[in-house]
This record gives sequence, C-alpha cells and structure tokens, in this order.
Amino acid sequence: MKKEELKSTIRNVPDFPIKGIQFKDLTTMFMNASALKAAVDDLYEEYKDKGITKVVGLESRGFIIGPALAIRLNAGFIPIRKPGKLPYDTIKIEYKKEYGTDTIEIHTDSIEEKDVVLIHDDLLATGGTAEAAIKLVEKMKPQKIYACFIVELDNLKGRERIKCPTYSTLHYNE
Amino acid sequence: MKKEELKSTIRNVPDFPIKGIQFKDLTTMFMNASALKAAVDDLYEEYKDKGITKVVGLESRGFIIGPALAIRLNAGFIPIRKPGKLPYDTIKIEYKKEYGTDTIEIHTDSIEEKDVVLIHDDLLATGGTAEAAIKLVEKMKPQKIYACFIVELDNLKGRERIKCPTYSTLHYNE
Repeated sequence: MKKEELKSTIRNVPDFPIKGIQFKDLTTMFMNASALKAAVDDLYEEYKDKGITKVVGLESRGFIIGPALAIRLNAGFIPIRKPGKLPYDTIKIEYKKEYGTDTIEIHTDSIEEKDVVLIHDDLLATGGTAEAAIKLVEKMKPQKIYACFIVELDNLKGRERIKCPTYSTLHYNE
Repeated sequence: MKKEELKSTIRNVPDFPIKGIQFKDLTTMFMNASALKAAVDDLYEEYKDKGITKVVGLESRGFIIGPALAIRLNAGFIPIRKPGKLPYDTIKIEYKKEYGTDTIEIHTDSIEEKDVVLIHDDLLATGGTAEAAIKLVEKMKPQKIYACFIVELDNLKGRERIKCPTYSTLHYNE
C-alpha cells in the first residue's frame, strides 16, 4: 500500500476534542486490515536494521501498533502508562501540559543498559508526552533511543522537542 | 514455546491493586520477545480457520495483543474505549461493577452485519467488562462473535457470563 493510500484511510473529525481542532482519527486505518498491516510494515522497514531490542508504547493508542511492530522486529514490548496502572516498581516523570501537569510511568526493570529502544506513539503533535517519555527512558541508560509515529503534525513543531532520531510514516501540515 | 514456559513469564504481584489480590502482571510476558510472539501465535492457531474479519480489543490492555492478532488473521482492529475517547459517532453500554457502574463505547461504523468478530482482552476475571463488550458488539448484529483471553482466572467463574464461544491460552485456579 502506498503512503497516499494509507493516508486516505485516516478520518478527519472536526472540533474534537474541542472546537477548532481537526482530529486525525486513526481508528479507520486500524479497522482496515490492509492499512493496519501497512502501518506496521512501514515502521518495520525503517527500523529492521537498527538492532532494536525493546519497543516502548505510550498508553493507550501507542499500544495498538507498538506490540505488532515489536513482534516484527523480534523485540519485547514495554508499556508507558498513566499513574497507578503498572503493578510493579516504577519510575515516574511529571511534565507540563497546556493546562496543568501530567505524569507517566514505566516499570523499573523493563529496560537494561544493553537495550536499543524504539519509543512509539500513534501521533506526534506538540511533542510534550513524547519528550517526557524519552526523558523517562533515558533514566534507564539504554544504548540508544529512537522515536517513531504513524502521523506527525508538522505545523505543531513537536519534532523540535524530540532529542533523538525520529521517523513518522505520514505527515500533515495544515 | 510451550504453555508452561509462557505461563512462567507472568509475574505475580501480591496486594495489587488492593490488599488480598494476587495480580497477574503480563508486562513481563510482553517484554519477552519470544513470549510476546508465542501469545499471539497461540491465539492465531485457535482462530485461523474461523473466518474472523474484525478483532475488537478492550482498552487498554486488550490493545496490546489484539492488533497483532488481527494482522496475523488478516482482519481489522476495532477499539472499545472508555467514554469520551473515540472521536466519531459511538454506541455505549453501561454495566455494573463491584462499586458503582462503568461505561464503554465503540464506533457505530466499526462493525457490519457481514463481520465475524473476535473480542479480545488480556485477562478474564469476573467477566463484567467482557460481558458488556459482547452485548455492545451484539447491537451491531455481526454474523458471529467469539471471545478470547491470554489468561483466565477460572475460580472467578467469568466464563459463566460470557455467552459466546470462548478460549483462553492460560488458566489459573487458585
């Protein structure tokens, strides 16, 4: 499937979650069997030679493609979750959002210094959560960190906050 | 990987989320590349000849194996989410929990009458959420509904509430 065709499977939902936002709804991509597979294939092609040992997915939408990508890369999958959801010992990071702050956490024994880590979320917008996720993973001192997304909203300049090699399958600038 | 070996990758966390509960932590299975793949393979073997066209995953932990299984089955993936998360038209169902009620929803255009649906969550305990998910999917009148889990806690008798063919890879009775 070509990227243009893959992009056409995304649904634009106006005024969600608030008025004025054009929400990129990827559920229409995921419900299309060919597009779902194509999204994983594209990320696999980008990372197949990078020696990735762990794919880290951000709750909840980063859980959808992250584990399927991990299986293709012969890597393990690690969830980053909202507070109180992970049952074992965790490290946390608090980060600023437009209004107030948010916290995410990861299991302390999930990443080792020998790991090469690929952080994944479905969409890169302003980059606040991705930036926090990278800082959280950095605390565990893996060999190398990469970040990848299915969709990147270029005009929101999230990439400027991502301090590691970054790849997105599809781009919007509107 | 044999089932016994797969089961050994699950971590038992005592007193989570509340005192007295022995929590089955599947994150240690997912972080193990071989176990992650084996979990998907086992469910694939069970459903490969059933004509599944859509895999429905329950937020959040049902998102981890559901989409990878969908890809193997050449099916689409549909999320069932907590209220307010899905951006398009949804149908909802409210169901009773131990204390109070909970609501889950699904996009109205996600399942058609021609679909054969496999509902997936990581773990079957008392079955309240799975029962609600089946009732929600039934409203869309697919040809057939199946349900599958990686872990089933047999002693909690969740299966008695699941009114469709059900399969779990691993069982506990403690």
